[in-house]
Amino acid sequence: MTDAPATRRTTVGTVADSVLAFTAGDDVRLDRGLIEVDCLGTAAHVTMLAGMPVTPPVLREDEVAAIRKELAEVVRQARTGAFAITAEDQDVHLAVERHLTQALGETGQRVHTARSRNDQVAVDLRLLARIELAGAAREAARLASVLLDVAERHRDVPMAGRTHMQPAMPSSVGLWASAWAEELGDGILLLGQAFDLADRCPLGSAASYGVPLPIDRQLVSDLLGFREPCHNVLYAANGRGRLESIILHALAQVMLTLSRLAQDLILFSMPEFGYFHWPRGFGTGSSIMPQKNNPDVLELVRARAARVMSHAAFAQELVRAAPSGYNRDVQEAKGPFLDGLATTRATLRILDPLVAGTEIDEARLAAGFEAGVFATDRALELVGEGVPFRAAYDRVKAELADLAARDPREAVARKTHLGAPAGLDFGLMRGRIGEAAAFADTFEPRWARIRESLLPGAFPET
Amino acid sequence: MTDAPATRRTTVGTVADSVLAFTAGDDVRLDRGLIEVDCLGTAAHVTMLAGMPVTPPVLREDEVAAIRKELAEVVRQARTGAFAITAEDQDVHLAVERHLTQALGETGQRVHTARSRNDQVAVDLRLLARIELAGAAREAARLASVLLDVAERHRDVPMAGRTHMQPAMPSSVGLWASAWAEELGDGILLLGQAFDLADRCPLGSAASYGVPLPIDRQLVSDLLGFREPCHNVLYAANGRGRLESIILHALAQVMLTLSRLAQDLILFSMPEFGYFHWPRGFGTGSSIMPQKNNPDVLELVRARAARVMSHAAFAQELVRAAPSGYNRDVQEAKGPFLDGLATTRATLRILDPLVAGTEIDEARLAAGFEAGVFATDRALELVGEGVPFRAAYDRVKAELADLAARDPREAVARKTHLGAPAGLDFGLMRGRIGEAAAFADTFEPRWARIRESLLPGAFPET
Amino acid sequence: MTDAPATRRTTVGTVADSVLAFTAGDDVRLDRGLIEVDCLGTAAHVTMLAGMPVTPPVLREDEVAAIRKELAEVVRQARTGAFAITAEDQDVHLAVERHLTQALGETGQRVHTARSRNDQVAVDLRLLARIELAGAAREAARLASVLLDVAERHRDVPMAGRTHMQPAMPSSVGLWASAWAEELGDGILLLGQAFDLADRCPLGSAASYGVPLPIDRQLVSDLLGFREPCHNVLYAANGRGRLESIILHALAQVMLTLSRLAQDLILFSMPEFGYFHWPRGFGTGSSIMPQKNNPDVLELVRARAARVMSHAAFAQELVRAAPSGYNRDVQEAKGPFLDGLATTRATLRILDPLVAGTEIDEARLAAGFEAGVFATDRALELVGEGVPFRAAYDRVKAELADLAARDPREAVARKTHLGAPAGLDFGLMRGRIGEAAAFADTFEPRWARIRESLLPGAFPET
Amino acid sequence: MTDAPATRRTTVGTVADSVLAFTAGDDVRLDRGLIEVDCLGTAAHVTMLAGMPVTPPVLREDEVAAIRKELAEVVRQARTGAFAITAEDQDVHLAVERHLTQALGETGQRVHTARSRNDQVAVDLRLLARIELAGAAREAARLASVLLDVAERHRDVPMAGRTHMQPAMPSSVGLWASAWAEELGDGILLLGQAFDLADRCPLGSAASYGVPLPIDRQLVSDLLGFREPCHNVLYAANGRGRLESIILHALAQVMLTLSRLAQDLILFSMPEFGYFHWPRGFGTGSSIMPQKNNPDVLELVRARAARVMSHAAFAQELVRAAPSGYNRDVQEAKGPFLDGLATTRATLRILDPLVAGTEIDEARLAAGFEAGVFATDRALELVGEGVPFRAAYDRVKAELADLAARDPREAVARKTHLGAPAGLDFGLMRGRIGEAAAFADTFEPRWARIRESLLPGAFPET
Repeated sequence: MTDAPATRRTTVGTVADSVLAFTAGDDVRLDRGLIEVDCLGTAAHVTMLAGMPVTPPVLREDEVAAIRKELAEVVRQARTGAFAITAEDQDVHLAVERHLTQALGETGQRVHTARSRNDQVAVDLRLLARIELAGAAREAARLASVLLDVAERHRDVPMAGRTHMQPAMPSSVGLWASAWAEELGDGILLLGQAFDLADRCPLGSAASYGVPLPIDRQLVSDLLGFREPCHNVLYAANGRGRLESIILHALAQVMLTLSRLAQDLILFSMPEFGYFHWPRGFGTGSSIMPQKNNPDVLELVRARAARVMSHAAFAQELVRAAPSGYNRDVQEAKGPFLDGLATTRATLRILDPLVAGTEIDEARLAAGFEAGVFATDRALELVGEGVPFRAAYDRVKAELADLAARDPREAVARKTHLGAPAGLDFGLMRGRIGEAAAFADTFEPRWARIRESLLPGAFPET
Repeated sequence: MTDAPATRRTTVGTVADSVLAFTAGDDVRLDRGLIEVDCLGTAAHVTMLAGMPVTPPVLREDEVAAIRKELAEVVRQARTGAFAITAEDQDVHLAVERHLTQALGETGQRVHTARSRNDQVAVDLRLLARIELAGAAREAARLASVLLDVAERHRDVPMAGRTHMQPAMPSSVGLWASAWAEELGDGILLLGQAFDLADRCPLGSAASYGVPLPIDRQLVSDLLGFREPCHNVLYAANGRGRLESIILHALAQVMLTLSRLAQDLILFSMPEFGYFHWPRGFGTGSSIMPQKNNPDVLELVRARAARVMSHAAFAQELVRAAPSGYNRDVQEAKGPFLDGLATTRATLRILDPLVAGTEIDEARLAAGFEAGVFATDRALELVGEGVPFRAAYDRVKAELADLAARDPREAVARKTHLGAPAGLDFGLMRGRIGEAAAFADTFEPRWARIRESLLPGAFPET
Repeated sequence: MTDAPATRRTTVGTVADSVLAFTAGDDVRLDRGLIEVDCLGTAAHVTMLAGMPVTPPVLREDEVAAIRKELAEVVRQARTGAFAITAEDQDVHLAVERHLTQALGETGQRVHTARSRNDQVAVDLRLLARIELAGAAREAARLASVLLDVAERHRDVPMAGRTHMQPAMPSSVGLWASAWAEELGDGILLLGQAFDLADRCPLGSAASYGVPLPIDRQLVSDLLGFREPCHNVLYAANGRGRLESIILHALAQVMLTLSRLAQDLILFSMPEFGYFHWPRGFGTGSSIMPQKNNPDVLELVRARAARVMSHAAFAQELVRAAPSGYNRDVQEAKGPFLDGLATTRATLRILDPLVAGTEIDEARLAAGFEAGVFATDRALELVGEGVPFRAAYDRVKAELADLAARDPREAVARKTHLGAPAGLDFGLMRGRIGEAAAFADTFEPRWARIRESLLPGAFPET
Repeated sequence: MTDAPATRRTTVGTVADSVLAFTAGDDVRLDRGLIEVDCLGTAAHVTMLAGMPVTPPVLREDEVAAIRKELAEVVRQARTGAFAITAEDQDVHLAVERHLTQALGETGQRVHTARSRNDQVAVDLRLLARIELAGAAREAARLASVLLDVAERHRDVPMAGRTHMQPAMPSSVGLWASAWAEELGDGILLLGQAFDLADRCPLGSAASYGVPLPIDRQLVSDLLGFREPCHNVLYAANGRGRLESIILHALAQVMLTLSRLAQDLILFSMPEFGYFHWPRGFGTGSSIMPQKNNPDVLELVRARAARVMSHAAFAQELVRAAPSGYNRDVQEAKGPFLDGLATTRATLRILDPLVAGTEIDEARLAAGFEAGVFATDRALELVGEGVPFRAAYDRVKAELADLAARDPREAVARKTHLGAPAGLDFGLMRGRIGEAAAFADTFEPRWARIRESLLPGAFPET
């Protein structure tokens, strides 16, 4: 994140233009999503500057008030699309500074005191990360809740459990659906841990090495509602790319669960299975085959999991061989980072009604119980009669042809131990999901208050 | 690539909208780059349909002429930005079909006979791949030529060769610069091989399994200037994702070379070295540090190499566990594919003037020759006197403190064997680059003729 | 993780052999590291079986005692290399079961009641993960401490801070070294979070769907010192691959920090810099160049970071498109998982003495301060005089040629705010590292007690 | 690839040992596979040295003969496992040099004149790559031939073609099986192109910058049967990592095809489908479920495809940010490189009998034809009657409930165009496979002659 090319102001020509195009990349487009957080970061920064013990003060209180009023105006304009980031601006930071300078003259020229654009990008991405991670956690918890509803409603519905994609042992729809919920709980934990790492204020790092001015980093951190400042300022600067990779990894773990859930839904809704029927409205047709209603949404869930995973690895790789201090390479993490957040949330949101509306076909599920599915149950019956397991196993194996099918419901009902099909504790599972997502419930109202206090009137909805 | 969600036409509601938003992804934006090739593919397809031996014919010759006229119109509109792909259209294919149907009524409704949208995407991406790969090869050859110019101009300028980033042995700027050129030659070979794999026509695969109509796949292939059709139609369909990954890998190999070249330029232009001075216009300043002129362009080359490499791995991964026949997952490869092509070409183009304008500082280069750089030369002198190499090595090592510096120019001049600093054959290197890129020279004029013959008047520049 | 190929026992031939070779992969070699944890898992399992309320009991107390005695014997033999896992065994689980059956006859045949090999692999990997993650956290904390020692010893030693690999602003060795320590603290937090996810007992999942026997999963979990059992048994089974990827990601984040630290050490020990001199004993020579002492260790740190990162992405990818229930694909995660743990720990251990022994060359560091490094300080001085920052910046930029060098020590001393070179709080940084690694301090003695209580006498060192 | 740590010879201690362990990595184990090629490379090198126009000659003809005799002895010993590479040796290169020096005294000390260990690794890997790539191409061509046999035998057997994993259109086993063969043909082409890039001799690069001696690089290249020398010696050195990544990418493309073939075999052999029955001997059982016979081999094919793909990305990444000249990082590519070659070949070899022995169940295949599969055929019939396609599509869609099933054989027979189920040209497909693999047929006998001429008597089997 740097200035315009040096030549830009003095020469007009193809080199400068092509350099600008090459270096700006997608920032103008991507930065639209950062306007609000950038204004909030600046509001906190100027508030701190006004209190900085230097004479004369860098900014007077009335100047700060004027700046915050203009920042609120920018936020309002951004909501209606009226605030533009131009190619000339390069990015949101210069666009906002330009607005302030145009509106407030010399006062605007003081805003960038004791900070760098890298500072701004770093704080913007962390502010955004907190909002989006909390949102993702809430949405993941909701999907987990939908899955637990499905599980509880069908807790006793038999479903042939599979290993190696082949029929294995008696199981239930309740076990299948709640397994995904418990796994989503892990994902939510990871989102919360990533949130904690993001919840530190980097401001004051400036060009990575701090400034010879008595800035109050703790105050800025508090104003923005961060848990604490990053301590070492070089550590703060080195976090770019790395922090994005940690957050993207947490998102990728959520997507991994969704991808496997989608894979199961695709498989088990093939006509050869017919276990599940997702709502027809989620299917798409073919341009050539009139009979088609395809699971495009679910296939794209698989594919977008790969996308978010790829983003996570990329952000990490980007900085692996980079020396300390800011390197421009990290700019390339911004697009994948924003995309990973948006993609994960969109996927969570679309699976919610899809899963909720999926019908379970008990008859088709029952038809999946071939006799072999009961082989282990038979061997363990022999164990109950005192036969050593290995001998029981061998005997059943030798007599597979004689193995009789059984009542799947009874077989499921006999698996009563903790966490087995008939031993599921839904209260416990719901409780864990709730705990994992609690950070989002705490954060969201707090954040609403913080942003309102920094830029009063900018957020009419709160 | 499929139809609108089934519900879209019958219901209006949030599910249908969110499904459409989720499945369409970035297609509306990305497909703008495919309008030309899509129109050309359709022109070839309808020409073939008119000749298909069925009664009544699917299209009459006059209908084909009308369609091609409208397609040329679409291409012209696209050039001025007047042809829109709307969210309603979903993608370029439906947008063009809509245009034809609006303009030509029932005739437009016949255009999609015996093909699917997957067919269209597949042929569009291959048509585009040929154009872009040829362009990339030409640009890579030009950069290689620039590097060889630098090398030839400074063939005898001494430069301390490094291993492990530490000074190692006498070398020259000529060796350094021409090494990158020879490596780019490998990249161009890979581009050419990827071109060959792309240079087969997939049309006629339809929904992956062909059609019960006597279509002439060879004719369509010839009309579009492909070397030959993909034979097995299911093979053609299965190629999506896989072909993109092969092309992206070739591009990634080019980027790998550029990344390492950039890394050397960054290192050797640090003030502690001062070997190279790239043109100031390619540097960018800092928002906080007035003295800065940073190598952002070169850092971004490093980062974008990682990006293209990531795209290549992603496209491959996308289809690894996919069964045969079309799966929607492959749509996700389109964005990275187009980005990989554009990114590589932009990088080649910006390095061309940057490298050409870089100044070589002979004095600073000479200052890099510490005595240790001559240790191996000394050991090999002893070998020349009959000392076994291992003994010579040990003797020099024991007497390192006494090792005297030498004249770097002389040291370089004594490395005369094939491919050594004083044994470089520039004619040979230039010849190989030229051969590797010859496919582009052949293709480009041929393609200009083909597209003009398919859509006369649509391409005023040719 | 499955049985021998069905044919193996009945036919002797090339198909069976090649299938066995193909499926066993590296297990025989890799499983040597799992013998201890496998025996401990079995000890807990049989203890539980003996208390299971079935008549007749699956195992009597005296049988359990005999089994645990044999397991302790296996552990002792393994320590001396006397316990072999043969190709015939395929893996550690069958090797141990074979030993028990040979030693105890029918009693041995009862051991595998109510569990599967997948159960065993899952619990073994989690037991090992806890041990290794705690070890890695301890070692990372030690390296962080070494870095903080270096930082505190050289807290005021000036070092020109860099951005874009170019000189940027005054900084200090203290800031540089402690930045890595604080970053390692993040890595240790991630290790701890991965530890928490690993710290759940999967046993009782059996073939993914539980068993129709009243097993006590809570008891087994307690015996092995897990925080709690995985609840849903299918969730437990689905965790393979996913859990490995989470752990590998935490390790990769640690390696990322080490890689960048290594990159700095390589750069700043080039003769053109000479800031740092790592101990000569960590260098390696060349087979041809007598003068060489290369930073191979540091280069390999960079490369091994890429390796662990690659492992993490691979483990995740392995299961992305896998349906629920056990799939054999996950076996492939075992090698990378074990390698990732070992590689990270080896890297932490070798960097400890390397960093501790590195000499800091204050004179060379001081020489790195060109006048431009003070440009921002000058601009901020003008700000102190009331000049708006943008105007100050422009003025300094216009007068760069006149910019005078300053005293680096004074410049560093003026950066006093929180986390700046002269505002570092070493107590705070040490405290955070200690808190992050506290889980390892708690776990290690507890684990020593647990394993001793499960297999008394098997671990003479405790 | 460098010498022992400098301290190793003078001090005995933990630092030196741990450095050696850290840097040597897996070389001692991995290098066992390189003994033959290393000896051949040395044989060519010393032959060249003897003819080098210096006085006195570095080696006399009788010395060369003695060296080649000893090298042949090493190769023979290696075959019986009698030649050891010890930890003391570090790698194959020092082990062989030690053997020569012990056997031949001072003559052995002259062998390493004018080359480096990096030279040796580079040539060894290229020599091995040629052998393995040719072997892989031959094996891939054989598997393609098996697939074409299956296809030709079942060319008319109907199989419901699928898209989105849902039934789509009538197809045939012949189309399905030959699609994989044609795709393998692409893989073989890529193997051949990678072979061509490997088929250049790097020797003479020494420490990356050549030597001040009149070595004859062309002669060495010819002696080893390379197409030509790498020209620029720095280019030759920079090829490490990059070349491995190109070769691994070609292998990964082959594995990608095998993975998708395996995925289809797994899916279509689930009892719900029952289309295919792979030979029972390729299945594996379960340790707990007596009825099981699982497709572990096929699942591992999927997983190992991910492994080879991961290797390819890793090798590329390893060098992305590396400056020119040798860097130790590249050593890490050796293990994945050798593993990628071996894994791909093992996978090709095991799929050969598995595919050949798979039974096709025509009755189950026929049962897969639900009426919807014929919807497109019906729409195209209407087109044949003059209805515009879009209207025909809409009409069939509106009347889906009335759509009647048809005779699948007839439906398949009507798809007669080029590359459609009834339009497959097996001769053409076989011909293309043969052409793609021709390089292997040429290379293998030539290589047998070359190695016999370099080390007569070392290869008794030829």
